[in-house]
Amino acid sequence: MALDPTKHADWEIAAEAESRMKTVYELGEQLGLDKEEVLPYGHYVGKLDFNKIMSRLADKPDGKYVDVTAISPTPLGEGKSTCAMGLVQGLGKRNKSVVGAIRQPSGGPTMNIKGSAAGGGLAQCIPLTEFSLGLTGDINAIMNAHNLGMVALTSRMQHEANYTDEQLAQRNLKRLDIHPKKVEFNWIMDFCAQALRDITIGQGPGKMDGFTMKSSFAIAVSSEIMAILAIANDLADMRRRIAKIVVAYDKQDRPITTADLEVDGAMTAWMVQALNPNLMQTLEGQPVLVHAGPFANIAIGQSSVIADRVGLKIADYNVTESGFGADIGFEKFWNLKCRFSGNKPNCAVVVATIRALKCHGGAPIPVPGKPMPVEYNTENVGWVEEGCKNLIHHIETVKKAGINPVVCINAFYTDTDNEIAAVRRICEAAGARVALSRHWEHGGEGALEFADAVVDACEEPNDFKFLYDLSDPLDKRIDLIAREVYGADGVSYTPEAQAKLKRLGADPDMAEMGTCMVKTHLSLSHNPALKGTPKGWTLPIRDILTYKGAGFVVPVAGAISLMPGTGSDPAYRRVDVDVETGKVKGVF
Amino acid sequence: MALDPTKHADWEIAAEAESRMKTVYELGEQLGLDKEEVLPYGHYVGKLDFNKIMSRLADKPDGKYVDVTAISPTPLGEGKSTCAMGLVQGLGKRNKSVVGAIRQPSGGPTMNIKGSAAGGGLAQCIPLTEFSLGLTGDINAIMNAHNLGMVALTSRMQHEANYTDEQLAQRNLKRLDIHPKKVEFNWIMDFCAQALRDITIGQGPGKMDGFTMKSSFAIAVSSEIMAILAIANDLADMRRRIAKIVVAYDKQDRPITTADLEVDGAMTAWMVQALNPNLMQTLEGQPVLVHAGPFANIAIGQSSVIADRVGLKIADYNVTESGFGADIGFEKFWNLKCRFSGNKPNCAVVVATIRALKCHGGAPIPVPGKPMPVEYNTENVGWVEEGCKNLIHHIETVKKAGINPVVCINAFYTDTDNEIAAVRRICEAAGARVALSRHWEHGGEGALEFADAVVDACEEPNDFKFLYDLSDPLDKRIDLIAREVYGADGVSYTPEAQAKLKRLGADPDMAEMGTCMVKTHLSLSHNPALKGTPKGWTLPIRDILTYKGAGFVVPVAGAISLMPGTGSDPAYRRVDVDVETGKVKGVF
Repeated sequence: MALDPTKHADWEIAAEAESRMKTVYELGEQLGLDKEEVLPYGHYVGKLDFNKIMSRLADKPDGKYVDVTAISPTPLGEGKSTCAMGLVQGLGKRNKSVVGAIRQPSGGPTMNIKGSAAGGGLAQCIPLTEFSLGLTGDINAIMNAHNLGMVALTSRMQHEANYTDEQLAQRNLKRLDIHPKKVEFNWIMDFCAQALRDITIGQGPGKMDGFTMKSSFAIAVSSEIMAILAIANDLADMRRRIAKIVVAYDKQDRPITTADLEVDGAMTAWMVQALNPNLMQTLEGQPVLVHAGPFANIAIGQSSVIADRVGLKIADYNVTESGFGADIGFEKFWNLKCRFSGNKPNCAVVVATIRALKCHGGAPIPVPGKPMPVEYNTENVGWVEEGCKNLIHHIETVKKAGINPVVCINAFYTDTDNEIAAVRRICEAAGARVALSRHWEHGGEGALEFADAVVDACEEPNDFKFLYDLSDPLDKRIDLIAREVYGADGVSYTPEAQAKLKRLGADPDMAEMGTCMVKTHLSLSHNPALKGTPKGWTLPIRDILTYKGAGFVVPVAGAISLMPGTGSDPAYRRVDVDVETGKVKGVF
Repeated sequence: MALDPTKHADWEIAAEAESRMKTVYELGEQLGLDKEEVLPYGHYVGKLDFNKIMSRLADKPDGKYVDVTAISPTPLGEGKSTCAMGLVQGLGKRNKSVVGAIRQPSGGPTMNIKGSAAGGGLAQCIPLTEFSLGLTGDINAIMNAHNLGMVALTSRMQHEANYTDEQLAQRNLKRLDIHPKKVEFNWIMDFCAQALRDITIGQGPGKMDGFTMKSSFAIAVSSEIMAILAIANDLADMRRRIAKIVVAYDKQDRPITTADLEVDGAMTAWMVQALNPNLMQTLEGQPVLVHAGPFANIAIGQSSVIADRVGLKIADYNVTESGFGADIGFEKFWNLKCRFSGNKPNCAVVVATIRALKCHGGAPIPVPGKPMPVEYNTENVGWVEEGCKNLIHHIETVKKAGINPVVCINAFYTDTDNEIAAVRRICEAAGARVALSRHWEHGGEGALEFADAVVDACEEPNDFKFLYDLSDPLDKRIDLIAREVYGADGVSYTPEAQAKLKRLGADPDMAEMGTCMVKTHLSLSHNPALKGTPKGWTLPIRDILTYKGAGFVVPVAGAISLMPGTGSDPAYRRVDVDVETGKVKGVF
């Protein structure tokens, strides 16, 4: 019997459930996997041998594919990960064969302020410490592969500065002539290290101490290699993409890739194991695949294509989370991830809380760390109804993808019957199924209505289609996303973005490259302060970045910080180890 | 049947043997371990649950403890790792219960020039790719723990620069007032990244972009946390040591520790799994423990105390490698590692090759990358006899520890009977057992004479004693090491070292701190060019470093580079992945 979430912290609930969780071998048996297809990492976490499983099950039809997304996030949190875990547990209670698929958290936020997003209450992914502290090492593998690329780049620049063409030829090297101000690649570390955001390297006194230049560190999960891990279809695809990463330009403005540095093979070598998705479990013992990272700016920011491909083969339902609001997370799931994978979703869940709907509808916006405004403790159907406009907008987005939306009202104790009835009425009028779910308090038993709604939605026919074709020019793609998904009146470009738009128009690779938008997730618009459904605005594109390895162009309509900062009261102050048991305390 | 090492590369031999290697569960059964004591990481590598095993076997007497060291290294290589693996295989062929214990290689040298030291020929540790590319992630754990400490230090300096005492107090922080020019801690990365050797950080434009100051990266294996991993007795000991790492001094010159930064618990949390030693195997299926790292400057640079403690419980013979020459590796094994662990060795092997003895005896010194001088292809007993002086010196060092030396002549096809007979005669006259070993060519079958000599030496009584007491003042300790182990006439100090000697004389912690010398391993003296047994010289101590976490003072009689450089023809150019099988090619 699980602990009572109204009386215990998430980590206490997780620790209690971990004392009786399934071994990774038991999870493998439950999934019908051969023993050698499960690669254990300790007794309770493992990796799945992707190649072996996909070969054995090549002819098996895929299961149902369910995405979990949300309304535009508010400071209150909608509990998407909790809902994803709750849905998996609810389907489990209905005796469905189900797996969840979520992304791995980054050490930076975990050690800083934010939790690691393993869910909460009685709907969580365990074991929690392993989940939060690096799991089987995939992010470390990315860190090593990425930084090896940067070692190759910087040492090559140094040797080219020190040696003549003849001396280079003796080493079988041809001068790459990299422009020191056109280095695009950076170093990575998986913490919030603002001190490494802008640095100068190669300041040693000797000519073998490196080439002096500006450089920077980004958080590891923002690496292009993480973006590649998330969208690669297999090892050959990952190998090919890593080789295409553009690290710099030469003095004639030609791109220099990892392949030019002859380091692409070695970078891939560090990533071989990371390609296999990680196997964990819910509090109630359903399997959960954890793979790829949370950084949704220059990546899809959700569980990997490989994890979903495996999940669809080994279970009848694969519940995957796409993070943020449907304008960010679902749009990337839809037009990027499903395009790269070829998988067709059956249904998308849009998560909302009554509290967040009130916030979108006009209630005072809460400030994290401050007491909740009292308005949230009393019924206000008017605010809920007004806030449903944001929810309806996201429902419409899901319907534009040709699949069936299910609204999940993630229950909270202050919700009133009238408020819930209002949401049900409005959503049903908009053509969406609605379910109230109490997984936070009651686990899978509390998510049965939710699970049933998803099963029904998956049984209905659907007509999945992309918003744009890859043959569409980039400005058309951006325009479609801005108008159809964000509700903008149009798009404007800075002269810099305009110039890049023109250059990319002539790039033959564009016919294979997806579009990965950067915009705040806190509003449908580019202005995070605007709640509800902003009207009468134009999306301003400031810049367009290109990631040839990942295969994305990234139109930037907001700020990108690739290296967050650690605050003055970070979470690591409260983390410790029980030296008798080895248990980690204070990690969420 | 293994491949012929005269016709196949080491990695081909390893790959063939890996096709029929034991699973980690089979290795555990062979060692009589309970199933839950083996934590698998995939099917062929695992970790041993140190606490569970030590609790269960607390009352079991320890096995025999054998160290493998060598003469002063030459560019030819003496093959210590190969000999350690050969001895384990030879003891295995004699049906002895045996484990090997070696250190994990660093990604820096592996990707740069040097091999990963898994042995060679028919005496290797497998699986080779896992061994060479990060194994179960211990070095990554060190990287995360260490860099988190640096994040805490640099973000604290930034916040203290931005906030008043009152604002800090609101966050429950007291000003540490760190002196920006007295920061002792650095960042780490496990590659040879010379461009990061000397850097300036915190150069972003905003006040939240970090505090601008000089900083540096070192190679991960040189981290004080690696030094701690190698000598910690258990988790409580590791927790205590990590908390004592001095990261900086304040403006009143008082030390600032990780505990002052409130990050010591979180740093330990990242290290919990790394404390368990890794289980691998020889080419012939004997278990090998792999733990801690190769950096012997500010650490012992050998397999961990924990691995040896476990090894001595689970087998009748634990063969551990201490690297470099006996003046460096064995001296640290003897006076540091065994003092911290309380374990008493029974025998030490001094490895020599006929070729390297010739080099010490006057033959032209070979240059790596150039053809071998022809002199090495013809018999020269005179050079061998003269070179044996270096070997005899190291034999005497082992005898000063009160344990029994065994000389292993690591056979090579150019050796002649007369040369081998000369070594036998000289060593036996010096009171050492001698064995010729052909493990490189014949595996365990070729190492039977070697194994028998070690078994005999272990049966003999011995009288293990330290060279110095921790109650001895530091200058006496250094003097004893210089005269008794290196053969110096005395010790000189720079004024800086003299001042530190005085300061440490008043430090009460000194009674618990070991002495970890930094000196070239290429000569018994501090001058790497001097082969044989240099006479009439004084050891110059340039500086004395203090590592309060590891519990070492480090007298420096040579150069320390904490960040090697990547050369112009690095190994990563030749590393790649077979995308069909996932096998890594070109890693040694």
